[in-house]
Amino acid sequence: MRTGPFAGRTVAALGQDLREGRTTATELARQALDAVAGLDPALNAFVTVDAAGALEAARQADGELAEGTDRGPLHGIPVGVKDLIMVAGLPVTMGSRHFSGYVPDHDAACVTRLRQAGAVIVGMTTTHEFAYGPTCDRSATGPSRNPWDPARMSGGSSGGSAAAVAAGMVPLALGTDTGGSVRIPSALCGIAGFKPAYDAIPSDGVFPLSRTLDHVGVLAGDARDCLLAYRCLTAQDSGQDAGQDSGQDVSRARVAWLDPAGLFPGDPRVVRAARAASGAEEEVRLPADAGGELRETYTTIQSCEAAAVHADRLADAPELFDAEVLDRLRAAEEVPGWRYVRAMAARERLARTVGELFGRHDVLALPAVPMTAPPIGRREAVLDGEKIAVRAALLAYTSPWNVLGLPALTVPAGLVDGPDSPNGPMDSPNSPMNSPSGLPVGLQLVCRPGQERLLFEVAARLTHS
Amino acid sequence: MRTGPFAGRTVAALGQDLREGRTTATELARQALDAVAGLDPALNAFVTVDAAGALEAARQADGELAEGTDRGPLHGIPVGVKDLIMVAGLPVTMGSRHFSGYVPDHDAACVTRLRQAGAVIVGMTTTHEFAYGPTCDRSATGPSRNPWDPARMSGGSSGGSAAAVAAGMVPLALGTDTGGSVRIPSALCGIAGFKPAYDAIPSDGVFPLSRTLDHVGVLAGDARDCLLAYRCLTAQDSGQDAGQDSGQDVSRARVAWLDPAGLFPGDPRVVRAARAASGAEEEVRLPADAGGELRETYTTIQSCEAAAVHADRLADAPELFDAEVLDRLRAAEEVPGWRYVRAMAARERLARTVGELFGRHDVLALPAVPMTAPPIGRREAVLDGEKIAVRAALLAYTSPWNVLGLPALTVPAGLVDGPDSPNGPMDSPNSPMNSPSGLPVGLQLVCRPGQERLLFEVAARLTHS
Repeated sequence: MRTGPFAGRTVAALGQDLREGRTTATELARQALDAVAGLDPALNAFVTVDAAGALEAARQADGELAEGTDRGPLHGIPVGVKDLIMVAGLPVTMGSRHFSGYVPDHDAACVTRLRQAGAVIVGMTTTHEFAYGPTCDRSATGPSRNPWDPARMSGGSSGGSAAAVAAGMVPLALGTDTGGSVRIPSALCGIAGFKPAYDAIPSDGVFPLSRTLDHVGVLAGDARDCLLAYRCLTAQDSGQDAGQDSGQDVSRARVAWLDPAGLFPGDPRVVRAARAASGAEEEVRLPADAGGELRETYTTIQSCEAAAVHADRLADAPELFDAEVLDRLRAAEEVPGWRYVRAMAARERLARTVGELFGRHDVLALPAVPMTAPPIGRREAVLDGEKIAVRAALLAYTSPWNVLGLPALTVPAGLVDGPDSPNGPMDSPNSPMNSPSGLPVGLQLVCRPGQERLLFEVAARLTHS
Repeated sequence: MRTGPFAGRTVAALGQDLREGRTTATELARQALDAVAGLDPALNAFVTVDAAGALEAARQADGELAEGTDRGPLHGIPVGVKDLIMVAGLPVTMGSRHFSGYVPDHDAACVTRLRQAGAVIVGMTTTHEFAYGPTCDRSATGPSRNPWDPARMSGGSSGGSAAAVAAGMVPLALGTDTGGSVRIPSALCGIAGFKPAYDAIPSDGVFPLSRTLDHVGVLAGDARDCLLAYRCLTAQDSGQDAGQDSGQDVSRARVAWLDPAGLFPGDPRVVRAARAASGAEEEVRLPADAGGELRETYTTIQSCEAAAVHADRLADAPELFDAEVLDRLRAAEEVPGWRYVRAMAARERLARTVGELFGRHDVLALPAVPMTAPPIGRREAVLDGEKIAVRAALLAYTSPWNVLGLPALTVPAGLVDGPDSPNGPMDSPNSPMNSPSGLPVGLQLVCRPGQERLLFEVAARLTHS
């Protein structure tokens, strides 16, 4: 398996190529469609490909550019959209048999913005069923697979978006992130993923999982492309080159390493790689108990809100759910309301407690995920000597920032050997990156709302160092 | 039984007497203490009387007035405080054996404001156990009784405050209102009661029942006194005579009768009396289903939030709860979280739907309670030919305004014969008001936040007509 045409090519570079006549939107769309045709049978990143729609949008983008209409950084850029974000006229399945054949007649607000920015929608990318799982290996449309080793999870729930970008089928994709669903697959697939502050990108027209935790986010090859897309989606693009430094003294951005042991056990090699990539000299710790409280708060809120979304389907047609998702929703239905009320109160307390960590630091750094990509279907593993549940582990370092609604970015932080080679095909000949002995690690950077520019400047500094 | 010295005497008139030398705060405090000693054995309105504290506060109030320090309309006025609002140094029981012997060391925020306004705290008034019931006949400190007929409920949960004011023991009292707990006993005892907009009076230091429904409110002989107290408690007293017209054209205040049948069956005599008192010429109706949705939304939110408050006590010492309260809390613990999530969403929808009723009207009028005071202990009754649950009936016309957080005032609207004289001692010789054949009805007025002045001006117009 080879990587596609967009591996290593940034949105920023593609935009330059487009404007300087070295390529056209139509050529980029054709390259994307060809790459999907060639690579996706092994990865299942795409559920639906809209060749006609993509080529039509690309022709329009080319026409506009030729006429001097420039919609900005996403103009003519091929994009994948997670299969629970409404795109008018395309089948959107939510990864569920409940919605097989469903075709929305309206675009989600973020899709409207994508179109206004001139992006070319290539198709819908695989989601874990109803986005209710960080593994992306339970979906009515089949599991998405990790381009580094197709026997391994992409991570999820925005697994198709991550695999599509990581394999170079598209340079950019939309995802959603309720507990890490943008950042987990980004980290496991070796790309960048950004979950903005709560409600920064509107969620109208996005199928909900857990309303107070759901975030729309972006996945791309590097942090700079995430920022470009984020600005377009929040209509903050001012025409300036977003990759440039702001002119602020970036050296003053104070980065602290947040000891992840306060949240969950981590594979020491993963933690070491992320820490080295962070360059952080200072270290902070969560207050005692905060880690456990964050996890419990997350689980309680997500359970109750997800069950609220699905209670009628659970009553009317439980047989249409994937068995694992059904089991989890049944358990979620049983969580008593008073626990939700307490979780919402704990959330406010935790926001104050954790907020104090930002008193002396602008950006907190920690791994995005405590482990590298486990094999598809794996539900238990050993991490740092402890037997752990894979789902809980995958979510452990990302979900706190959904509870608190804070902006969080993951960027590639190198490779380590897979932690469980005896159980997984570490040296798979299918690995597309020619890195049979290593799997990617993500470094996560977290900031307060309003400090996003600083977050991305720190990311740029790390990447360039 | 006779009525006490404050029956028919308003806070406004008492203030005039104080400032013109016809009485002193000390004399008013003594009158209140004597009235409690004489009248309360039959009514159980007070749980704790603080004679020493009241006389000390009164002496200080007299001293200040003599020195020319005037703290405003509540200066020197005796006040009762519901037995779950913290008063430093006094036992506060919440009506529960869980808190027998509990003495807080801080005043609630509203008590601090009372003291700053120069009020004289006479003691703590009976609450339904943990305020979890509109009947006020289940309390570790015994039921409060209706001054119109001590065999009947005062209504609750602020039953002691209402009985104390109705019987003329004090001219003013603080209560709390989660589903009607200020307005229900005010209506059943024939006085005025005001539940402000959500969070208008701070609830710090008030023992919670259901955080998003809890309101601190005031009970007094008439609406004008409620407004005086409300302004002092919200620090909005500007020194002007709050009973005067604002100079606005009150005739423009548009009052509509809200057909209460959309909420719950009502005793036709009660509905007629309230409607006649309202003087409303126009009539509006709730949208179909809104009544049922409001009731269900209220019950779900209250259940989950109350269980969140009490879960640890339920686990550790269930035997200390009243049996009926325990049963209700056990049921509340079982309400699933997804129903709470849906109720919170329904609440937002209902706010929009019901908000539209205010498009052409400033004030909605309806009865405060669908019936007159039932006998103590009564849990079932017949209303307009329908067998109903007494608790649900008592709450039916008031709780919607807690769900929506709207200001709501009840004012006396005359008397009707008790609905169930075969079961209750309608012609009790104990009736303090010499109205053996009638029980009071309350007219409720509801407005949008920010329109409170209009609400009180409408009340004044009705009272004076």
